[in-house]
Amino acid sequence: MDATFDGAVVRADERARERFYDSRGYGSPVDGALELAPVEAAHLLFRGDLDSVVDGRPDADGEELDFRGFLATTAVSEVAFSVYKDLRDRGFYLAPESGGDATTSDAETFAVFPRGSGPWDDQVAYRVRPVSERADVSAADLLALADADGETTGVLGVVDEESELTYLELSRPAITGSSFHDIPDGVIGDLLADRVLVTDPPTALHERAFYGQRMDDGSPHLQLSLVEAAYLAGLGTLDVDGGQEALAERGRAVEGERFDRRLRAYSALRTAGVVPKTGFKFGADFRTYADVTSVEELGHSELLVRVLAPGTVFSPIDLALDVRLAHGVRKLMVYALTGADAGIEWLSVARLTP
Amino acid sequence: MDATFDGAVVRADERARERFYDSRGYGSPVDGALELAPVEAAHLLFRGDLDSVVDGRPDADGEELDFRGFLATTAVSEVAFSVYKDLRDRGFYLAPESGGDATTSDAETFAVFPRGSGPWDDQVAYRVRPVSERADVSAADLLALADADGETTGVLGVVDEESELTYLELSRPAITGSSFHDIPDGVIGDLLADRVLVTDPPTALHERAFYGQRMDDGSPHLQLSLVEAAYLAGLGTLDVDGGQEALAERGRAVEGERFDRRLRAYSALRTAGVVPKTGFKFGADFRTYADVTSVEELGHSELLVRVLAPGTVFSPIDLALDVRLAHGVRKLMVYALTGADAGIEWLSVARLTP
Repeated sequence: MDATFDGAVVRADERARERFYDSRGYGSPVDGALELAPVEAAHLLFRGDLDSVVDGRPDADGEELDFRGFLATTAVSEVAFSVYKDLRDRGFYLAPESGGDATTSDAETFAVFPRGSGPWDDQVAYRVRPVSERADVSAADLLALADADGETTGVLGVVDEESELTYLELSRPAITGSSFHDIPDGVIGDLLADRVLVTDPPTALHERAFYGQRMDDGSPHLQLSLVEAAYLAGLGTLDVDGGQEALAERGRAVEGERFDRRLRAYSALRTAGVVPKTGFKFGADFRTYADVTSVEELGHSELLVRVLAPGTVFSPIDLALDVRLAHGVRKLMVYALTGADAGIEWLSVARLTP
Repeated sequence: MDATFDGAVVRADERARERFYDSRGYGSPVDGALELAPVEAAHLLFRGDLDSVVDGRPDADGEELDFRGFLATTAVSEVAFSVYKDLRDRGFYLAPESGGDATTSDAETFAVFPRGSGPWDDQVAYRVRPVSERADVSAADLLALADADGETTGVLGVVDEESELTYLELSRPAITGSSFHDIPDGVIGDLLADRVLVTDPPTALHERAFYGQRMDDGSPHLQLSLVEAAYLAGLGTLDVDGGQEALAERGRAVEGERFDRRLRAYSALRTAGVVPKTGFKFGADFRTYADVTSVEELGHSELLVRVLAPGTVFSPIDLALDVRLAHGVRKLMVYALTGADAGIEWLSVARLTP
């Protein structure tokens, strides 16, 4: 069986098309023959389905390349190959969505067809972007991948330095809850260094709406975090010397612009009927409760929220850390990407087993 | 009972000494009377053991300060107060080790005496540094705290923005293992973009010493990570075009100096008989196995190792994230603090319930 690599694709004859495309979903048929992306050819070489590929590049002398030789041409990145191979091993047919060009192969995506389907069908189950653990991924790229339309799920396929695969499912979660409570205005608070002390809080403030933290069981004193206090001052519910601006200034003194971002995310969550409380013990900005009727009947918190600037660039290992922890405590990891004066993009990341 | 605040300490009479120091370990006796650090006085005010403190500062007019009024003087940070109160609630006697000066109160430490002991005894169970979740902590400070001598444990007491406490125990762990294996020299590897492919590896390399990863069950091909390959090339075990330097260069191309730090930590672990494998799925650089005899009889990995520059400044929330995750997977979180040309300081951080 003749297969020739021209530097971009591997071309093979009609018999190859029948054997590899028609029955097993490799490549694309072109004029009755077969065109394979380098990653597809590499997989056929690895499996021994192809013995070798002829190096038909202008400056090559028609050498026969085996698996090792073909990989050494760097026509296909080992990262893309690892993901391709793993998904094939799991029983999927898949196709590179770009040309599979070596120089951009880390940025290409694979269209993964539902089990039992192939490139001749219309449906795509997963759109998977292979990425090395050592490569950074921008928030914008992840949001674009999360936008996979219809029934397609956007997935980051991370290959770690020992060639193990981790699949991360990307979505844009709906942020909605039913936690709405009436709190009487005129709550008086003292701004301390890092929080606000309310010595005579109305019952609804903590017991129903879950603002603040009692200083002691049975103590009348309630401590509000700066972000809670700034939100309540903005609503006109809380009176503090200097108002919301004094609270925000105190927040910015330590956190800078991050405080404004956190306040923005906090406000959006509260506005959506979701109660954010500190996520410190989980290493996140907030954990959230969608349906709070009273503190006594508090359920399980559903989300861990980390607030980040929209220009954030993630290292895959940071995503792995967040997602692993969230999974371990049965919560969904959500990033709130927000600038100082813009809307919030919500992005969730979760482990996936395709 | 008369107690006067002079801006630095609160002085009270002999009756106060009997009642607060002799029987409950507050303050220090001075000439038969009692000197209280602000945080101690605040706690007595909070409990109602003291009704008020006279403001005896030069520019004050002798006002009587209650708990709320005393906190408002900012003589004591609410962070230090939260930690002091929590440890008292847990049944400990404790004493500030610095003067308890308000301007440095976040940097002061508490000597916490063993249960049933007090300041009149010699033993210290924990040396606790109170810190706000929003304050950064340098690696150097954590190492100094980990050096608490003898039977004293160094502890970071983190107060999150909702005034909840998290205690982190700091230690310098011993890094030792028994994983030593003979591997024949002359292993041949091909440097790909991001890893090394060994097509004909000796059995001991993976099956006994746990280097690399089989490409497939039963496949002869072994993939080595760049850091594994660089270490083996340095030993003279692995032959790759360009040797260790070519591998390190490839590593640096993406990670910069971080690759050298990781290689240094990797080498130190292997030299100590400990096998490091990627910690990617746990968001760490390495997970480690102390006693590997063969891959088939691999036990549980004991440590998660993150490699950092010695000048690293931690945000407490990052520590909380790492420690929570490590705890969840029954491993100890260890930081390897290492520069390009220096030794490694090992620092472990774990959750503690005093």
